[in-house]
Amino acid sequence: MCGIVGIVAKSHVNQSIYDALTILQHRGQDAAGIVTWHNDKLFLRKDNGLVSDVFRTRHMKRLVGHIGIGHVRYPTAGSSSSAEAQPFYVNSPYGITLAHNGNLTNAAEVAEHLYKEDLRHINTTSDSEVLLNVFAHEMQKQGELIPTPESIFKAIARVHQRIRGGYSVVAMINGFGLVAFRDPNGIRPAVFGVREREHGKEYMVASESVALDGLGFKLVRDIAPGECIVITKEGEFFSQQCAEDPKLVPCIFEHVYFARPDSIMDGISVYKARLKMGEYLAGKIMKERPDHDIDVVIPIPDTSRTSALQLANRLGVKYREGFMKNRYIGRTFIMPGQQQRKKSVKQKLNAIALEFAGKNVLLVDDSIVRGTTCNQIIEMAREAGAKNVYFASAAPEVRYPNVYGIDMPAVEELIAHDRTVAEIETAIGADWLIYQDLEDLQRSCLNGASTEVQEFDCSVFDAQYVTGDIDEAYFERLRVARSDASKSSANSAEDVAIDLHNDQE
Amino acid sequence: MCGIVGIVAKSHVNQSIYDALTILQHRGQDAAGIVTWHNDKLFLRKDNGLVSDVFRTRHMKRLVGHIGIGHVRYPTAGSSSSAEAQPFYVNSPYGITLAHNGNLTNAAEVAEHLYKEDLRHINTTSDSEVLLNVFAHEMQKQGELIPTPESIFKAIARVHQRIRGGYSVVAMINGFGLVAFRDPNGIRPAVFGVREREHGKEYMVASESVALDGLGFKLVRDIAPGECIVITKEGEFFSQQCAEDPKLVPCIFEHVYFARPDSIMDGISVYKARLKMGEYLAGKIMKERPDHDIDVVIPIPDTSRTSALQLANRLGVKYREGFMKNRYIGRTFIMPGQQQRKKSVKQKLNAIALEFAGKNVLLVDDSIVRGTTCNQIIEMAREAGAKNVYFASAAPEVRYPNVYGIDMPAVEELIAHDRTVAEIETAIGADWLIYQDLEDLQRSCLNGASTEVQEFDCSVFDAQYVTGDIDEAYFERLRVARSDASKSSANSAEDVAIDLHNDQE
Amino acid sequence: MCGIVGIVAKSHVNQSIYDALTILQHRGQDAAGIVTWHNDKLFLRKDNGLVSDVFRTRHMKRLVGHIGIGHVRYPTAGSSSSAEAQPFYVNSPYGITLAHNGNLTNAAEVAEHLYKEDLRHINTTSDSEVLLNVFAHEMQKQGELIPTPESIFKAIARVHQRIRGGYSVVAMINGFGLVAFRDPNGIRPAVFGVREREHGKEYMVASESVALDGLGFKLVRDIAPGECIVITKEGEFFSQQCAEDPKLVPCIFEHVYFARPDSIMDGISVYKARLKMGEYLAGKIMKERPDHDIDVVIPIPDTSRTSALQLANRLGVKYREGFMKNRYIGRTFIMPGQQQRKKSVKQKLNAIALEFAGKNVLLVDDSIVRGTTCNQIIEMAREAGAKNVYFASAAPEVRYPNVYGIDMPAVEELIAHDRTVAEIETAIGADWLIYQDLEDLQRSCLNGASTEVQEFDCSVFDAQYVTGDIDEAYFERLRVARSDASKSSANSAEDVAIDLHNDQE
Amino acid sequence: MCGIVGIVAKSHVNQSIYDALTILQHRGQDAAGIVTWHNDKLFLRKDNGLVSDVFRTRHMKRLVGHIGIGHVRYPTAGSSSSAEAQPFYVNSPYGITLAHNGNLTNAAEVAEHLYKEDLRHINTTSDSEVLLNVFAHEMQKQGELIPTPESIFKAIARVHQRIRGGYSVVAMINGFGLVAFRDPNGIRPAVFGVREREHGKEYMVASESVALDGLGFKLVRDIAPGECIVITKEGEFFSQQCAEDPKLVPCIFEHVYFARPDSIMDGISVYKARLKMGEYLAGKIMKERPDHDIDVVIPIPDTSRTSALQLANRLGVKYREGFMKNRYIGRTFIMPGQQQRKKSVKQKLNAIALEFAGKNVLLVDDSIVRGTTCNQIIEMAREAGAKNVYFASAAPEVRYPNVYGIDMPAVEELIAHDRTVAEIETAIGADWLIYQDLEDLQRSCLNGASTEVQEFDCSVFDAQYVTGDIDEAYFERLRVARSDASKSSANSAEDVAIDLHNDQE
Repeated sequence: MCGIVGIVAKSHVNQSIYDALTILQHRGQDAAGIVTWHNDKLFLRKDNGLVSDVFRTRHMKRLVGHIGIGHVRYPTAGSSSSAEAQPFYVNSPYGITLAHNGNLTNAAEVAEHLYKEDLRHINTTSDSEVLLNVFAHEMQKQGELIPTPESIFKAIARVHQRIRGGYSVVAMINGFGLVAFRDPNGIRPAVFGVREREHGKEYMVASESVALDGLGFKLVRDIAPGECIVITKEGEFFSQQCAEDPKLVPCIFEHVYFARPDSIMDGISVYKARLKMGEYLAGKIMKERPDHDIDVVIPIPDTSRTSALQLANRLGVKYREGFMKNRYIGRTFIMPGQQQRKKSVKQKLNAIALEFAGKNVLLVDDSIVRGTTCNQIIEMAREAGAKNVYFASAAPEVRYPNVYGIDMPAVEELIAHDRTVAEIETAIGADWLIYQDLEDLQRSCLNGASTEVQEFDCSVFDAQYVTGDIDEAYFERLRVARSDASKSSANSAEDVAIDLHNDQE
Repeated sequence: MCGIVGIVAKSHVNQSIYDALTILQHRGQDAAGIVTWHNDKLFLRKDNGLVSDVFRTRHMKRLVGHIGIGHVRYPTAGSSSSAEAQPFYVNSPYGITLAHNGNLTNAAEVAEHLYKEDLRHINTTSDSEVLLNVFAHEMQKQGELIPTPESIFKAIARVHQRIRGGYSVVAMINGFGLVAFRDPNGIRPAVFGVREREHGKEYMVASESVALDGLGFKLVRDIAPGECIVITKEGEFFSQQCAEDPKLVPCIFEHVYFARPDSIMDGISVYKARLKMGEYLAGKIMKERPDHDIDVVIPIPDTSRTSALQLANRLGVKYREGFMKNRYIGRTFIMPGQQQRKKSVKQKLNAIALEFAGKNVLLVDDSIVRGTTCNQIIEMAREAGAKNVYFASAAPEVRYPNVYGIDMPAVEELIAHDRTVAEIETAIGADWLIYQDLEDLQRSCLNGASTEVQEFDCSVFDAQYVTGDIDEAYFERLRVARSDASKSSANSAEDVAIDLHNDQE
Repeated sequence: MCGIVGIVAKSHVNQSIYDALTILQHRGQDAAGIVTWHNDKLFLRKDNGLVSDVFRTRHMKRLVGHIGIGHVRYPTAGSSSSAEAQPFYVNSPYGITLAHNGNLTNAAEVAEHLYKEDLRHINTTSDSEVLLNVFAHEMQKQGELIPTPESIFKAIARVHQRIRGGYSVVAMINGFGLVAFRDPNGIRPAVFGVREREHGKEYMVASESVALDGLGFKLVRDIAPGECIVITKEGEFFSQQCAEDPKLVPCIFEHVYFARPDSIMDGISVYKARLKMGEYLAGKIMKERPDHDIDVVIPIPDTSRTSALQLANRLGVKYREGFMKNRYIGRTFIMPGQQQRKKSVKQKLNAIALEFAGKNVLLVDDSIVRGTTCNQIIEMAREAGAKNVYFASAAPEVRYPNVYGIDMPAVEELIAHDRTVAEIETAIGADWLIYQDLEDLQRSCLNGASTEVQEFDCSVFDAQYVTGDIDEAYFERLRVARSDASKSSANSAEDVAIDLHNDQE
Repeated sequence: MCGIVGIVAKSHVNQSIYDALTILQHRGQDAAGIVTWHNDKLFLRKDNGLVSDVFRTRHMKRLVGHIGIGHVRYPTAGSSSSAEAQPFYVNSPYGITLAHNGNLTNAAEVAEHLYKEDLRHINTTSDSEVLLNVFAHEMQKQGELIPTPESIFKAIARVHQRIRGGYSVVAMINGFGLVAFRDPNGIRPAVFGVREREHGKEYMVASESVALDGLGFKLVRDIAPGECIVITKEGEFFSQQCAEDPKLVPCIFEHVYFARPDSIMDGISVYKARLKMGEYLAGKIMKERPDHDIDVVIPIPDTSRTSALQLANRLGVKYREGFMKNRYIGRTFIMPGQQQRKKSVKQKLNAIALEFAGKNVLLVDDSIVRGTTCNQIIEMAREAGAKNVYFASAAPEVRYPNVYGIDMPAVEELIAHDRTVAEIETAIGADWLIYQDLEDLQRSCLNGASTEVQEFDCSVFDAQYVTGDIDEAYFERLRVARSDASKSSANSAEDVAIDLHNDQE
């Protein structure tokens, strides 16, 4: 997962893009980058690390210009080296830079075509470099000296035809302006907003509305699936539907876990969706165990707090923050030679014994992926004196891979893969385990929302892949690639392979 | 405020001290340091920054030894340059290193005596350097070739006689072992614990019990006020009361705001104390406005969550997390030349409109100091659609300076200084403002706790300074020093004054 | 001026390219870069600084592959920002990287055509980026999926037609191999050599033969003017003349000052040429002042040592190293706010009084450019007690700008510009000043050498520009550009403009 | 070997000390440090690296004050870790900092006494820390609140009594001023000078006069053996002989190799001494082989140039610079895993074939230590076509260890150890080898010089150790220590042992 932002303003945008990336930092803490445009030159800074680490005063000073784009990256295991920060750049045609959130399902195939068709070399394993080159190629084919919104829309139409997957993209064309678009199914999110300034209207595109809020931009709307919007450097706005058969099928995992609760996505308040998840889950509990003996509901911080609170309210049971989270444990150091040491959940969470001693506790998490931390947390609850430890997941069983940009472990590592709920309950050591039903999850998001969404991408729960190109052969290729990647990472030279597009220090 | 840790173990302590400092990081994010002892040599690393920034693999590898101490520092405005990381070191006698949490009220006077009496030069403005040299001087006067617990206890008795203030200290004597002590009023906290390992008992001293928990140490007890404990490098434990008239009067602000909720201090669970603060505050609300029209209770994250939840429970009103906090905004960059730019609360907090629209909301914070963020938050609540915005502080009015180590702004900047509650209500723009009563705050901490505490240092609320040496003349000196400091910081040479004890990079 | 190197080997080339760049470091201390190729990926590291500063172990480990190119850069004042390290890269077609030594005289015009013709954006002010894009464009026009030596030769022929100036170039084409070529007048130098290794022949291209020597490569020959050589990644060698009217007119300043004395360039030993310069200069002295009263000949270290020694021998006068050079003064620090402080020659050179006291000394330098250090050195000689101070320049009067890659100050700053020798003598404060005659300088290089050179580019001495495109209008444009550059450097944003192609840290 | 400097001025001394250290950089490239004094505070910066690497603008800005001392360090193998940069500091008494050049022969014993007598802990293996603590202890014993020149002289007298070896020292006493002294045999050099400035006289102490020259200080004289000079911060000068039986026996190796030729040491011009070495050596050659067939004399750059030139003059043989030195090879990188790779002399030196082909060459070096590079150079001369390769050493056979601060390999590694000249000739592969006679070397330095030196420390040639405490037992202890050091360096923890006195980054 990643976060993207693009701004066309009437004054320097470096500080604004920096601030926006900070607000979107939850979407990726692995790398960050900003590129700006000024007087026919592009200025770039990108590196691994948090936004506050990557951009120092000396970098910010160089990032001049009234227009720019930015990116924060989540590391996608198995698919790429850890060294491919965005935005990416090609100098031909025009000088185009691009950043994206998502995943292409036919990247390898497209990259090969790119080379054969246009001799374009892809130097990294990043989808974004592929996406940028497809776009560049389609722009080049039209061969205009000065690009127009029309030529851009045509190019984006071709991009949609050539690539598959989930993607939301911002790009900047040297001397022209900003381009943003979203995949024909709207799997990945993108919104835009405006703010009025003394010298005129300023535009901003971002992954989440919360970034607009933080910078004083007013949310206009989500970019439609397949739609492309263009904002010239002078501030003119153009938009057009560029996909043949667009349909809004956004990723439901944004609501489950990924997005900030204070964001509005495709008209749906993430916060409200999470409240509803708590309500529906309470309903299921009441139905399954009308005479449950739960004494207290305790969230696993931070994501599940909203749903756990509402769940407790509906059950009429006490809600208590029984686990304290250590906010600084994140990038903790482990002595070399002890890498294998399990980063103990104990260092990250601490149980308040008072809230567990002698009680039947219901722990609530947003979802269960590998199940390993579940296990440790349940153990901690018991050590803290809990009589019975029940566990509720605000999302259904995660059983299938995500191919649209959410990083998931290999399917074999998913605890729900090939296991019944009873088997999972045993595996994580809970006295009772309850999952949200998929219909309820969908209802949580849709109920009461003024949205055009009719269905969600729920593929990790139901293996329904909306792009239609995901089959067993695809997963087989993925498995081989992952296996190769893990092999080559044993080869230290390969492992550190830093591509041309990256600052190395 | 700062965090301290000391460990005597049977294997290398670098990783353990690192982990402990990470757990205590909330006590100070400004600087960090570790010193270890191995084969008659001391190994030190300290620098400004978070624990995860200061200690890289190369540093950790050098920090060899089975005994060591560590420190995280909170920047104390007005009293010192930003460049004095701890632990400090003197080579005479023995080679002693020391780290401390707290503040001496007679540091300047003691430093002058030190020079005149023992020709000891103090190169920084840090109290810790003074404290270390007093201790060193008292050890030297006894002139033993090999220190003994007795000679240490004698020296600490002299230290208590010479210095005033609140302090908890860990020190390490080359070739001997660990020393830890607490001021005669136990104002600043310190606990110790043990864990059994294959090769024997290991000891740990720390500012808070939560650090013991995280590392598998069992809390033995708090260090008593005035008490000194000594653990030889072989693992022998000694302790003795070294103050003439010890009395346990711990700082109540640890419970209000500073300590982690999952810590137990002087027998009191911080978490439980905060729950009680919510209860008492609910009681006061019911008494003052039995027919209040509060629709929802909303905490200002993170500290006030515990009390706000219990307050809501007692009131029988809905509790909702209406503000979302941006976890990454902390060290955010601001373009040079815009330093004056108010770091907007808006970037740090975001209101969920849903929870405010059309409602009478009661915002709860742990305390109110300057009142400036209060103001902005109340404004945000109104913008989010709140009908009425009420504000509750889990602590009473903060009206006086803290002189025992909690960094507070100058007294003129305290919003409650020289203002009635009604005036503060107006100043922060609340429709209703309610403060906890001091008696209730004390009761919150004491009620039901198995503690030896009979009274607290509540000086920021009631100006009762337990050390007895704080008078108007003291504050006058403080004002002058602050004023000089702010003047000299205009002098860039002074401002960056990096002392001898510091790594510069 | 710059240094270039390219190697096609049978094992990893990182260490070899590093070593070669170290040997060529005298050609540029400003920036360094290496790009290697491995398994269809390119690996790049470049930054400002000395070779030993730019490449750390972590960078070297990443630079995997059996083929690569490298560059050291001399800062060219007035023409570019200090932030454009080489090699440069374009991904279309193929993925091509390029490094070059020299200067294009029609770069601005070509860059403009590039944009209009091929929409190729040039993001820096570096000639190398222009050169790379011309080459890339000419390769792309041919559109072969797999490039061949023939298509490369065709492209280089077009490059020669489109660009003007002095240039020697190494480039690397992804998946194919190495390309090297030299301008049609052979102004800038380039040689190549081979070494046999267990697994076959290895090739190396470099600016100077001394780099081949240091790495055990045997010099094959100089690349001919206009010639292009191609070495496939498998080690096949191809070469072809690609210029229409090639003619060997190498830059004579390489022999005067720039090249290492132990290099052989176009068949001429630089060392031998410098010996001869001393001989001819002695001849002129004997002719002008047969009864001179020179007591001792003293070189200005380091370059002039060779000619000064031979000059002394021929005159039958004592040769003495009367000036000692401080080898570490190079990158010395000056406190901010004293930037204007003249970096005193006194810190760099120290006179041995013994060799000056009471003597008539003849100081010898390789050439005189601005004359400012001359002045100071003559003053030092007088302070050291010299009776008379004579000054000899092993090169003629430097009166005109260099447009082929040797960085010279603006023409007005040249002391010989618009001055007679007598006027210069007065200006530098010498008791007698003697310059080499241009014919003698040329003879020094040619006499006895087995070379195909018949004439040299001596434009700084005689304003004869071999490319035929240098007229008053050209210099006028240059003046304007310089003036603009100095203006824009007042604009701090422009000044630090770091382009996309650069690592920023 | 190391370089020291101390300045008492009327304005900030940071830039001047920096410049002086740059000029003295040839005395140590391993580490550098500066400490200054301002308003009762000391400001320190020290780290491994060249002066230009260690001091960045941010460090220089902090080094405020009109008085300060500086140091450059040569790494002394076997005796210390690579991480003990100077100056060192103790806070008791007064706050004293100290930097020194030399070696104590009874450091271990003194360190032990220091601990037992004064409980002073020595945390490094550096002699300087011992020396500083002895001085500090002797100052403390006198117990004056404000030190006086008299008390300092008394303390230095005690220092001379307690320690043995060769040492020249600068120290700075907080609030008082500068102290400099030299061992009772004047083995290590130290000079001082003055310059007049608007606001008064400024003083400078340095290892070599060349540093005074570079900064515009006029050499007053050498510090006498055993003498101590004191300059108060106000600029008052005091001096006194503090040794009981002083005698000037300076290290002759300074003249052979270590010092800059443009320095004057104890009245002797190093340059002139080297000229004479060439003359005496020529005399010996003429005597041994009156009919020698030497065609050309070629120095091994850089040190031997002066003597080789004069040698050639006296022989009436051509002098030629047949070897070119690569100035940038110094800190060259070697891929990990190839550490054992011999840093080939070939990368450092290159032979000009022209000067060797068919000739009988006499190579001249300042001295022969291990003989390994000799070997390679002679090989290079043969490859370049030399008919016969003769080798002359301007110094006699180096057969014994240096214990006064010049770093030498273990005695077994000295090629002249237990070998006759004939055997060495064979070992290095020369056709003829000739060494300077020791008497001639001494005469070279004394003849014609206006100096008080009557004899030199020539212990590496004749095993006469002037301090009288060097016996077989001493060397045995040294061997054991070295052996232990090399063992412990296998222990990576020990190896990186960074002491308290060092900046780690």
